[in-house]
Amino acid sequence: MGSIVARLKGFQKLTPTDEALRTWLNVLQVKRGREVTVPLNEALNRVLEIDMIAKDDLPRFDRSAVDGYALRAEDTIGASQFKPVIFQITEVEEVDSKQARQVWTGNAIPKGANAVVMIENTKRRDGELEVWVQLALGGNVSKKGEDVKKGENVVKVGTRLKPYHLALLAALGNGEVKVVEKPRIAILATGNELAEVGSKLSGSQIFESNRVMLSAMCRELDAEPVDLGIAKDDVDEIAEKLRTGLRNCDAVITTGGTSVGGVDLVPDAVNKVGKPGVVVHGVALRPAMPTALAVLEGKPVMILSGNPVAAIIGFEVFARPLICKMLGISKEEPRPVVKAVMARKVATALGRKTFVRVRVLKKNGEFLAEPVSARGSGAISTMTRGNGFIIVPENREGVTEGERVTVHLFGNVETAIEDV
Amino acid sequence: MGSIVARLKGFQKLTPTDEALRTWLNVLQVKRGREVTVPLNEALNRVLEIDMIAKDDLPRFDRSAVDGYALRAEDTIGASQFKPVIFQITEVEEVDSKQARQVWTGNAIPKGANAVVMIENTKRRDGELEVWVQLALGGNVSKKGEDVKKGENVVKVGTRLKPYHLALLAALGNGEVKVVEKPRIAILATGNELAEVGSKLSGSQIFESNRVMLSAMCRELDAEPVDLGIAKDDVDEIAEKLRTGLRNCDAVITTGGTSVGGVDLVPDAVNKVGKPGVVVHGVALRPAMPTALAVLEGKPVMILSGNPVAAIIGFEVFARPLICKMLGISKEEPRPVVKAVMARKVATALGRKTFVRVRVLKKNGEFLAEPVSARGSGAISTMTRGNGFIIVPENREGVTEGERVTVHLFGNVETAIEDV
Repeated sequence: MGSIVARLKGFQKLTPTDEALRTWLNVLQVKRGREVTVPLNEALNRVLEIDMIAKDDLPRFDRSAVDGYALRAEDTIGASQFKPVIFQITEVEEVDSKQARQVWTGNAIPKGANAVVMIENTKRRDGELEVWVQLALGGNVSKKGEDVKKGENVVKVGTRLKPYHLALLAALGNGEVKVVEKPRIAILATGNELAEVGSKLSGSQIFESNRVMLSAMCRELDAEPVDLGIAKDDVDEIAEKLRTGLRNCDAVITTGGTSVGGVDLVPDAVNKVGKPGVVVHGVALRPAMPTALAVLEGKPVMILSGNPVAAIIGFEVFARPLICKMLGISKEEPRPVVKAVMARKVATALGRKTFVRVRVLKKNGEFLAEPVSARGSGAISTMTRGNGFIIVPENREGVTEGERVTVHLFGNVETAIEDV
Repeated sequence: MGSIVARLKGFQKLTPTDEALRTWLNVLQVKRGREVTVPLNEALNRVLEIDMIAKDDLPRFDRSAVDGYALRAEDTIGASQFKPVIFQITEVEEVDSKQARQVWTGNAIPKGANAVVMIENTKRRDGELEVWVQLALGGNVSKKGEDVKKGENVVKVGTRLKPYHLALLAALGNGEVKVVEKPRIAILATGNELAEVGSKLSGSQIFESNRVMLSAMCRELDAEPVDLGIAKDDVDEIAEKLRTGLRNCDAVITTGGTSVGGVDLVPDAVNKVGKPGVVVHGVALRPAMPTALAVLEGKPVMILSGNPVAAIIGFEVFARPLICKMLGISKEEPRPVVKAVMARKVATALGRKTFVRVRVLKKNGEFLAEPVSARGSGAISTMTRGNGFIIVPENREGVTEGERVTVHLFGNVETAIEDV
């Protein structure tokens, strides 16, 4: 009975979501992970550990932006199709006055030349070239350093590397790159009712399904999940698994059993392992109220609900910003958002930040957000049937039909690519 | 001279972008790739090859949605805090009238019971329980099959698997899953001027940088890139590399050398290898005009520009939909879009679909799209400095300052997560 009262009391003092995250991160003082060098072709989605300084100009030399003839712009003054200027075609290294040398896109501009006339604006006959247009100094020339200047900071520390970053780094001669080591995240499920997928269920057993999901969510952020298996509802067994996780990994996530039989099993196990232990327990967040946040051996421990949707929201709100900090990501990586119109009203509880799953459709050129009905708020099918969520803040009691809302997308909106 | 005229003539007949894609896909008749079975924890982002039918209900049994006491709803009629109804606490398997058995969230509802009263709405003393609220039939019970019904098609063929799909499939007892084999995409760079990253540059050589980028773009779509290296500007060498690619892979992408020295080297090499060869050459698309699309041995061959930005746009417009088709993806996977206001006007050419790189910023609560200045349209730094593009259709000559446009994002918009 004592433990039940304690627990209920704990849940009466729910911490606001933003405060919970702030408190936890303050205790943690997360540092960026260690540096590791990887070949450029394995660097996609990794996070840069240093500023990348251009070792050279790009382009390295003045080069032709078109197929045509390199010449001196000043020699083309007054040229037109009716009054062409005649040039001598040459193949010498240095182009002299009234000489033209053929160049193709990307070729270096020969010495002496300062512009390129496009092949379409010329006529060649015998050794001579008619030029039909007047050219500006530097016309059709990509200048040395036009794209990138030597010494420029081209990709900054904390950048997640995308394909075009790799192209730029390769163009500057970098065959490998220093990135932040992937944080290793141990994942533990707890609960007597849980069975491994593939086993035969008996009685009121269910298949454990959160580890594969949370592992995939780690991988999406380029963290490395480490499976700690399933623990029974036993404080000692859970504590032992936590110690294993802390020994081998940079953080631990647990799912399930935050309050089984009225006892806060996982928080109790965490507090048994060390100090400071649990720093936040119970968050004013729906559907992830029973989330707890802890620190052990200076490492983050996230105690998520066993309810799959609550585990997703707990991960989204706490693990995602944490992992981004461990990776040293300098910019926020928000999910894509769309503005949509609510198709129906949704009621939420005052004082709770609430994540409402919706399905966004395009209808008559506008985005419509339909709440995905959720009698069981934990129903994982609300995620597979939806494609985004709206976040109703603490000071609201819901959203009204027809209201314009911001939808954070976790799936695709089915709509054709749009032009302007 | 003949070849130059031929080439110029070719470029006068640019194919509209949509028609180019349609023509090519019609010749190709792409079939979905072979089926392969993978463990669920390796299935993230893979594409389902079959419909996944629920082998059981979810939940498998009626279970409690809260911590509390299972009882018969009809026995609570009239109950209130001032007029509690008294129940006998029991631990027997079947709950009788006026009996209550303690259950925790997720526990099976005992036989005989049809509702659960939350612990907060009760008071326990000795072997008795005061119940303070009236319950509806099924109150606080998650019904068998409420989330998913046995036989339901829970994840459809052609779905790209996200973390929550994996959770649902695990919950239904699937330890592995049949997905579409990753298409193998051979990637070849051509050009005498190209040197491998890491080598020492001489004269007007440059580092080859498109293969690492195109490989990463394949990986982002979950295709498997295969490196064919660099070929000199030599039709026979290119043809030989193409044959190798066709032998080992499901598609080939080349970059560079579409028209070197006035000769269409890669298209010529393609046509030398077999029939039908090139089916589209020259697209009314900026900056990817020199793109060519071919078919050899029934397999797709994409001939992209050597200009990195043109290669990106060519990939985006042709390789991306192709790979999605090879993967059998049933839904479009558009990039996320935001509506933004143009910060400056941009002129484009009538009759050309034009991809304009922009940087989207949030300013005074609104998204602003600043064109990323591009004297050299091929400058890869226009991608690293930008985060999206607008697509100006063929019938427009640009966009005006202040115009509302749709920006297709390839990077993040730096903005905090927004509430509703």
